[in-house]
Amino acid sequence: MTNDKTAEQNMLHRMIVDFTTNELAPLDMKIDQLGDYPDGLFQKVIDNGLLGMTLPRQYGGAGFDYVATAQAINAMAFGNASMAVTLEGHFKTLEQLLKYGQPELLEKYLPTATKRIFAFSQTESSGGSNPKGISTRAVKQGDNWVITGDKIMITNGGLAQVYCVLAKTEDDQMAVFLVDQDMPGFSFGKREDFIGLRGTPVGEIVMDHIKVPGYHLLGSIGQGLEIGNNAHDDARVLMGAVLAGIMQHELKIAVDYAKQRKALDTPLYELQTIQEKITDIAIAKQNTELLYQHGAELKVAGEPYSKVAAMAKSYGSRSAVSSGDKALQVLAGYGYSREYPIEHLIRDARAMEIAEGTVEKMNTEISLKEVNK
Amino acid sequence: MTNDKTAEQNMLHRMIVDFTTNELAPLDMKIDQLGDYPDGLFQKVIDNGLLGMTLPRQYGGAGFDYVATAQAINAMAFGNASMAVTLEGHFKTLEQLLKYGQPELLEKYLPTATKRIFAFSQTESSGGSNPKGISTRAVKQGDNWVITGDKIMITNGGLAQVYCVLAKTEDDQMAVFLVDQDMPGFSFGKREDFIGLRGTPVGEIVMDHIKVPGYHLLGSIGQGLEIGNNAHDDARVLMGAVLAGIMQHELKIAVDYAKQRKALDTPLYELQTIQEKITDIAIAKQNTELLYQHGAELKVAGEPYSKVAAMAKSYGSRSAVSSGDKALQVLAGYGYSREYPIEHLIRDARAMEIAEGTVEKMNTEISLKEVNK
Amino acid sequence: MTNDKTAEQNMLHRMIVDFTTNELAPLDMKIDQLGDYPDGLFQKVIDNGLLGMTLPRQYGGAGFDYVATAQAINAMAFGNASMAVTLEGHFKTLEQLLKYGQPELLEKYLPTATKRIFAFSQTESSGGSNPKGISTRAVKQGDNWVITGDKIMITNGGLAQVYCVLAKTEDDQMAVFLVDQDMPGFSFGKREDFIGLRGTPVGEIVMDHIKVPGYHLLGSIGQGLEIGNNAHDDARVLMGAVLAGIMQHELKIAVDYAKQRKALDTPLYELQTIQEKITDIAIAKQNTELLYQHGAELKVAGEPYSKVAAMAKSYGSRSAVSSGDKALQVLAGYGYSREYPIEHLIRDARAMEIAEGTVEKMNTEISLKEVNK
Amino acid sequence: MTNDKTAEQNMLHRMIVDFTTNELAPLDMKIDQLGDYPDGLFQKVIDNGLLGMTLPRQYGGAGFDYVATAQAINAMAFGNASMAVTLEGHFKTLEQLLKYGQPELLEKYLPTATKRIFAFSQTESSGGSNPKGISTRAVKQGDNWVITGDKIMITNGGLAQVYCVLAKTEDDQMAVFLVDQDMPGFSFGKREDFIGLRGTPVGEIVMDHIKVPGYHLLGSIGQGLEIGNNAHDDARVLMGAVLAGIMQHELKIAVDYAKQRKALDTPLYELQTIQEKITDIAIAKQNTELLYQHGAELKVAGEPYSKVAAMAKSYGSRSAVSSGDKALQVLAGYGYSREYPIEHLIRDARAMEIAEGTVEKMNTEISLKEVNK
Repeated sequence: MTNDKTAEQNMLHRMIVDFTTNELAPLDMKIDQLGDYPDGLFQKVIDNGLLGMTLPRQYGGAGFDYVATAQAINAMAFGNASMAVTLEGHFKTLEQLLKYGQPELLEKYLPTATKRIFAFSQTESSGGSNPKGISTRAVKQGDNWVITGDKIMITNGGLAQVYCVLAKTEDDQMAVFLVDQDMPGFSFGKREDFIGLRGTPVGEIVMDHIKVPGYHLLGSIGQGLEIGNNAHDDARVLMGAVLAGIMQHELKIAVDYAKQRKALDTPLYELQTIQEKITDIAIAKQNTELLYQHGAELKVAGEPYSKVAAMAKSYGSRSAVSSGDKALQVLAGYGYSREYPIEHLIRDARAMEIAEGTVEKMNTEISLKEVNK
Repeated sequence: MTNDKTAEQNMLHRMIVDFTTNELAPLDMKIDQLGDYPDGLFQKVIDNGLLGMTLPRQYGGAGFDYVATAQAINAMAFGNASMAVTLEGHFKTLEQLLKYGQPELLEKYLPTATKRIFAFSQTESSGGSNPKGISTRAVKQGDNWVITGDKIMITNGGLAQVYCVLAKTEDDQMAVFLVDQDMPGFSFGKREDFIGLRGTPVGEIVMDHIKVPGYHLLGSIGQGLEIGNNAHDDARVLMGAVLAGIMQHELKIAVDYAKQRKALDTPLYELQTIQEKITDIAIAKQNTELLYQHGAELKVAGEPYSKVAAMAKSYGSRSAVSSGDKALQVLAGYGYSREYPIEHLIRDARAMEIAEGTVEKMNTEISLKEVNK
Repeated sequence: MTNDKTAEQNMLHRMIVDFTTNELAPLDMKIDQLGDYPDGLFQKVIDNGLLGMTLPRQYGGAGFDYVATAQAINAMAFGNASMAVTLEGHFKTLEQLLKYGQPELLEKYLPTATKRIFAFSQTESSGGSNPKGISTRAVKQGDNWVITGDKIMITNGGLAQVYCVLAKTEDDQMAVFLVDQDMPGFSFGKREDFIGLRGTPVGEIVMDHIKVPGYHLLGSIGQGLEIGNNAHDDARVLMGAVLAGIMQHELKIAVDYAKQRKALDTPLYELQTIQEKITDIAIAKQNTELLYQHGAELKVAGEPYSKVAAMAKSYGSRSAVSSGDKALQVLAGYGYSREYPIEHLIRDARAMEIAEGTVEKMNTEISLKEVNK
Repeated sequence: MTNDKTAEQNMLHRMIVDFTTNELAPLDMKIDQLGDYPDGLFQKVIDNGLLGMTLPRQYGGAGFDYVATAQAINAMAFGNASMAVTLEGHFKTLEQLLKYGQPELLEKYLPTATKRIFAFSQTESSGGSNPKGISTRAVKQGDNWVITGDKIMITNGGLAQVYCVLAKTEDDQMAVFLVDQDMPGFSFGKREDFIGLRGTPVGEIVMDHIKVPGYHLLGSIGQGLEIGNNAHDDARVLMGAVLAGIMQHELKIAVDYAKQRKALDTPLYELQTIQEKITDIAIAKQNTELLYQHGAELKVAGEPYSKVAAMAKSYGSRSAVSSGDKALQVLAGYGYSREYPIEHLIRDARAMEIAEGTVEKMNTEISLKEVNK
């Protein structure tokens, strides 16, 4: 917690800060307006090796642990939250492959993970990731599985090329399989028109009798929900990092404005109502930082981190939205203008009160962990 | 409060509800997307006589009092908040003319007020409407005044044709004058690109040595701030009505969705977290309704209404934003989509935490009224 | 809403203000410390005819309507909330007798209601007033009913002499009966040691085969829950009035202190953090006033008032607690002292987040009324 | 953060948990009711060596660092917050002696610090610790200083025997001196009758021309405010620990109740409104734990910790009050009873929104650190 990073972590951190400062931050407003990444930007992410941040060296990655990775995501989100979420979606998926994937699958797919985005998909249109609501089917055919179904609201859906999908077997057990966009029967559906994180594609895939070899099964039959929940946990730690990065951005905008402007002859930062807003944002940012870092540290230490991960996202998402609202009010009319970034930060943050488990769902989870401990 | 309206008020109410249902509500999403009123819409407002709602009959208006008018604005805001704010800006200006205008001015201008929008403009780029920040100048030339200056963030700026402007005389006294877009020296400046109320133009006027007759002075020299404050009060009552209308819309969306959707087998409206959100919205809407109606009743009764008007806007604006956020969460992913209206209601409501006095400024005003009573 | 009271209402209001100022307010701190009404105080309430405020004149009362009564309760609560709640408990019970009582019962009991407290009791130790949790039994014996059971958490339990009790008949239907403390089989149980409203007794009654004539049944067999709910509605309107009175007291303490004290050379009331607290309290008080008055007006007009009554109590109770907390912070160390009244106002207000239906229960009720309208 | 404590820290932790469980927790309610520590209890604190926890071994203490100490205070506050605050007041004072004390003073006084309480006193009746409000005077007389003045609201005032006091010199510079209750001219004043932390005495000392040797000056003349601020920082880290301990207690009460009770047939912990309250408390506790631990770690690492210390107290105090309120609501009528501890936890926590700098004052400090970094 007191920032004793290794030299290697420092290099990663410096590299991310540079990439963010030079490549992402200048495009932050444009990404929001375009509703997409500008041409060439994502290639730069690949060229800089960012997709391989967490990937073990044996597969061609940089092999950073989750603490370093979360800090990198945090630094990136300060400049642009969409790209940070795109990486989060990729990394959470790789974590499941590394934990549950069979050697044959890992050898085949992981070496491509520095160039291709991997995504994890649970949600269907019947709502949520509850087993009762899953109609994607996996049918055993000899050594293969045949997957049919429709998944929506997938982070990086459309951008990703490899998908881990939650499906039900014939005996109604839950399982996760890896499918590839290049397989016969795979097609893309609709992209959502969401109000924030407009760079990050959120989309649909349609699977029409996709045949995959048996080793494309992650873990074992019946382990699907466990893997799905584990993916949520890994996502939530990184989303905490994204949210702390957004709040860092909100804080900077509010502080910079309060330093430059005066109300009559008084600098804004001397007004108590401005001070309260700056303090509220600063505390929320600090808490979210500590939460995501604690979650990442627990994960690296092999201790339970699910509860803290949920806290980071539940607290962080609500805080980043209300912090953005406070920053907007510091800037008043300027904050309310489309020409200033603050309003899109609120829209970006708002996604995470819903994605990867709504605040309400996570609150149920957190409370049950308190009750059952 | 118990809805004993006259037959005439009922007719007005019915007419507004019809107009809103048939003409405005169907265009609500489009107005937000366009960032303007579609061609022909504003003409329908004029054709239906809506600009003359408060105008005394002697000038060709319908002569409704502020209670009836506020209820009409409320009903209209349920369908589209932008147009309701456009009318609010017009009515608050007419109130100042009726209260402070000289007979010659009224005879000349009020009969046009059923066809032309009147606007009230105080703010300048140096910030706020504080006398120290006003650099618009009114110089006496014989029986005339010559007005020079630049006003920004005017509700209906660009749409309105007649402007009451706050200016400083040579001996640094504050006064309000009426200018007309057709006068030599008058030109329009930049329109703001705000995030909400995107139908309502908010813009700038530039006055370059506009010469007006002496009777274009409202009230007397030195009365400028009083008139400006009175305009704020009249605006705030109607903004309370707009905000209650927005909350009515938010409530309807949340309730409709909670009735139609199920989480697994449970209707959403049976979930306590949904119930709490619906209740919070319903209470906030009820409070804001009572506040704006109370403010309007006090005004009609000739009693002080400035404090209640500020409460209606301060409480109402914060409530409409947080109510919108709760409604969005009820709809979750759908609420987060640009295809559903809830997200633009939040943006619309957010304007009123800033316009016509920020929440912070009003809170100072309200507290001082409590201290000094 | 604009205070057009009749001369009679004005007399009542003046009388209550005088009684509160002279008799109650000076004992406010002492009542809290004693945990009871000082000797002789309650007799003064009787001697001043306050128990008969709502009682029709034919039974010896003053016959004020609920609007006037609620305003009287509000004025009293400004001086002492406990006594206001004691009257609320009495009045809500009389309302049920007047609405559901048989003529023979009214003739016999109502003339005593200017001297004796009447109470309404639903709750049992198994929790709440849900039918499943009611084990008090009413058994028909010829023309009589025999009542057996144990009721707890009764407002004025121990002080009241007449009780309307919710019971289950042999065929599991709910009904309400009137019992008298002088009847054989009646005894008092434990008085609660609650943290606030310490003057108002909250206690238990034990009924051991109390035999009552048939006309002691209110309404009809099966109407028990309706009567219970109606009692809640009538209580909640008056509790809204109590809560607005408490907030009036909190506001006065905060404003008086802010006017008298300085932070260095600045009067406290000029500090924005003080202004925000005063404004928040003032708005919450205003909203609660409008809610309880609106509820009372709807009741008097014969329109549905259940939803607004629940809003007055749900919003009012939470607001009075948070307003008290803000007032305490205005006074800082003095607010935190037992020598100042602010801290007991918080404790008093806190009762009403629980009594007559918890906030959570009311929120469910309010939301269902929105869903089903 | 991942709990890698040394064996020694584990021993301390175990010892504190045992002492709390066996000696403090059983007296928690009694301490609140008595408004004092029961006879003999404080002697047990001394006998167990707890006053020497932070004292370097050379002076007879146990020499634990601030991280271990803060965790010990946290564990103690779970059982009784008053005693934890009593130790906090002692430790923050010792920290100033160790940092600013002259060798002669340390040799003379520190060896007694395992038996005697040391207190730090800044506040005077003119309000706060602002230099303008300090009228305590230190007058140089040869090698000695003569101290005269009156200090109020001292944590452990009356219980402590040694006091570090902030005074003004003849040339209006601020300085801190150590005085002893056994010195001529020293007397105790009034003890405050506060609503919470009722075990911890908060009182007044009166100094009438107390003569102290020159080495009783801490640091140098003019360093008084720096030392006072440093004392605040050290206090706030430990108060964060106290507040997290209180929240741990509130959480346990709420969870235990939710596990035991049912609403009709549903266990309370399955109700969403209960789950939300439990989650809110759990997150607030987690955040406060991370904040105080981070503050302590920064202090031990020699890095700036003032901002994080203020955050721990500002966020922690508000959270512990609102968490207590939520726990009370989980228990409903039981929570509202004096027979259950939850209500006194709220009163205990409430102190820390005021003591050692109000929330408002800290928010100004935190915001200025953000502005000036």
